[in-house]
Amino acid sequence: MALLVVCLLGAAVCASAQIKEDFVSLSSNQDGQEYPKANSQGYVRARILAPKANEVQLQINGILFPMTRDADGYWTGTSTQPFDEGNHYYALVIDGAEVPDPASKFLFGSGAERTQIELPAHDQDKYALRDVPHGQVRELYIHSNVTGGQRHLFVYTPPQYDDDLTVRYPVLYLQHGYTENETGWSRQGRCGWILDNLLADGKCLPFIVVMENGEVTKRFSPESRTDGSMNEAAFVRFPAILLQDVIPYIDSHFRTLADAGHRALAGLSMGGMQTRIIGLAHSDVFSQIGLFSGGVISEKDLQDNPNFLKNNKLTFVSYGSREVETPRGQHPKEVVAAVRAKGLNACYYESPLTAHEWQTWRRSLYEFAQILFR
Amino acid sequence: MALLVVCLLGAAVCASAQIKEDFVSLSSNQDGQEYPKANSQGYVRARILAPKANEVQLQINGILFPMTRDADGYWTGTSTQPFDEGNHYYALVIDGAEVPDPASKFLFGSGAERTQIELPAHDQDKYALRDVPHGQVRELYIHSNVTGGQRHLFVYTPPQYDDDLTVRYPVLYLQHGYTENETGWSRQGRCGWILDNLLADGKCLPFIVVMENGEVTKRFSPESRTDGSMNEAAFVRFPAILLQDVIPYIDSHFRTLADAGHRALAGLSMGGMQTRIIGLAHSDVFSQIGLFSGGVISEKDLQDNPNFLKNNKLTFVSYGSREVETPRGQHPKEVVAAVRAKGLNACYYESPLTAHEWQTWRRSLYEFAQILFR
Repeated sequence: MALLVVCLLGAAVCASAQIKEDFVSLSSNQDGQEYPKANSQGYVRARILAPKANEVQLQINGILFPMTRDADGYWTGTSTQPFDEGNHYYALVIDGAEVPDPASKFLFGSGAERTQIELPAHDQDKYALRDVPHGQVRELYIHSNVTGGQRHLFVYTPPQYDDDLTVRYPVLYLQHGYTENETGWSRQGRCGWILDNLLADGKCLPFIVVMENGEVTKRFSPESRTDGSMNEAAFVRFPAILLQDVIPYIDSHFRTLADAGHRALAGLSMGGMQTRIIGLAHSDVFSQIGLFSGGVISEKDLQDNPNFLKNNKLTFVSYGSREVETPRGQHPKEVVAAVRAKGLNACYYESPLTAHEWQTWRRSLYEFAQILFR
Repeated sequence: MALLVVCLLGAAVCASAQIKEDFVSLSSNQDGQEYPKANSQGYVRARILAPKANEVQLQINGILFPMTRDADGYWTGTSTQPFDEGNHYYALVIDGAEVPDPASKFLFGSGAERTQIELPAHDQDKYALRDVPHGQVRELYIHSNVTGGQRHLFVYTPPQYDDDLTVRYPVLYLQHGYTENETGWSRQGRCGWILDNLLADGKCLPFIVVMENGEVTKRFSPESRTDGSMNEAAFVRFPAILLQDVIPYIDSHFRTLADAGHRALAGLSMGGMQTRIIGLAHSDVFSQIGLFSGGVISEKDLQDNPNFLKNNKLTFVSYGSREVETPRGQHPKEVVAAVRAKGLNACYYESPLTAHEWQTWRRSLYEFAQILFR
């Protein structure tokens, strides 16, 4: 046990010696807050006033790092490992109580509203708020015949949507992942800003985006506590809501091009799994699909769904490079190449040096949007 | 000192003896969270797991209440005073660290994103999410010539807005208070749900609502640290942004009735003060105004602004009953009666048993909306 402690201390000292002291405040901080900070290597430093505490820890992506107390009662701690560019969920642990850092802004992720850190990225201009024309992100409540209650969703309309009331637009239905909700693509995903920037740069066509709830974010509620009912909610109830309630509402309340050729479905992680299942079964509804870290379309899928190969116009598959660096079965790039050889217009994108996280999915949307509805 | 402790204990026991054990979970809780709770008298009970803590306190509206530890490491505490119906900001204090309660949802208020409790109210159906047709709350970013950057604002459009693209609507510009921001009226204020419910019940006319930022929410930033620059921001820069940037944008991007007769301005607290100053000076732009806990229009105001009496069609003044129960100068009801006698169409509303808080302002909007644009 003593040996283990010495080893761990040794590793910490070694890692600390390499940490560059070029820490900057984060864009995810609340107004006027200096901490949390990150350095150019992706190390994170947090601080909090907790004068009577015995122990305070920094938790990022579930990993705990110690914090130390100064004479004024402030606790400061730096992660002993770097984190990828982009967005991560984190918390502070004060004497065993896991709490949000009051210095940071909040998002919904991992089943609850919680604090997050936004690490600077070399390509952050893709999803930055720029002084360009902006679309609107509209918050809607609509009645669902499937559930008998109200649905809460967000709809992005492009900047020019209100300029000419005779123009109609294609629609992308875009889904979040497990334990996330309908706010994810606008907040963490920066969907609106990504599309505003692409449009300002002439890199994509204007389209509407609909962001619904995939039905499994109430992680503590009885209906999603077991795998069976999670599957029921995500892969049976959600498709019914999407096809029977949401699409008819959108087509009757927005100026859409209401045919399969102008309708796409995409999602991340569980949203990609939903897209794969719905996309294969309903290629007469969606002609273009995007699977972000959520599976692939295989040769067997094409055999089992002959209409899909006939109807599908675009199949986009993406992963973060860290997700596929240890192969589990056939590499997705090879699966995509195989279905492409069968005649499917499939393409593959890999986000460099990111994992199963929002930076992968922001970049996936950035790439997917440029080839969508062409 | 011993005597003081005995007295305080006595008071606590006395108060506790009257607390009804009919606590229910709050609508402001995160999904699946049992605590915080409140009882029918307005007492609040919170709970958190903090096994290694020395001291945990519950803080509501800045008042601290002790919490006690059980054998499993959970701390539970009940306020020793009741709170008004409606929304209040709160936090937990764990060994001196003031942190959000991870069991509650977040709002922006008092200068930061923070946790809140939503106490049940006898009239909560006014601002509840009902299964009725809903308008949209649209998030906009627009360029400001006054600031040279982007403005972030929300626009409510009524449920029927997209049904007939030839219909044009009046516009209410609706402002938040000091240390709040442009999210307040939709989130804490429930503006959209209040108007949806009134429209469903046939109690108001449909109109657009624009919710901007009053320029003083960055309480920690240098430009708002002194009273002088707060005044500059709230009462000089904000009116310029509103008149030069926001109104022209709204009138050119929404189907508005773009004249003073169909344009109103209202606000709460500081937003009421802004409304009073802008409304008196620009009665050629806004024909109807609402001051919610934000001052009155006096006889001297009418003398100093002769055009106001000529142009104004409606002046609505409101307060919470607890704000005016100790008179400071003339009672606002009497001031309103005096200007009414001079020919101004002024009216006064008092929210029963509420103070300078959101429940007063929700009710004020509910009343104001019913007489607006008639």
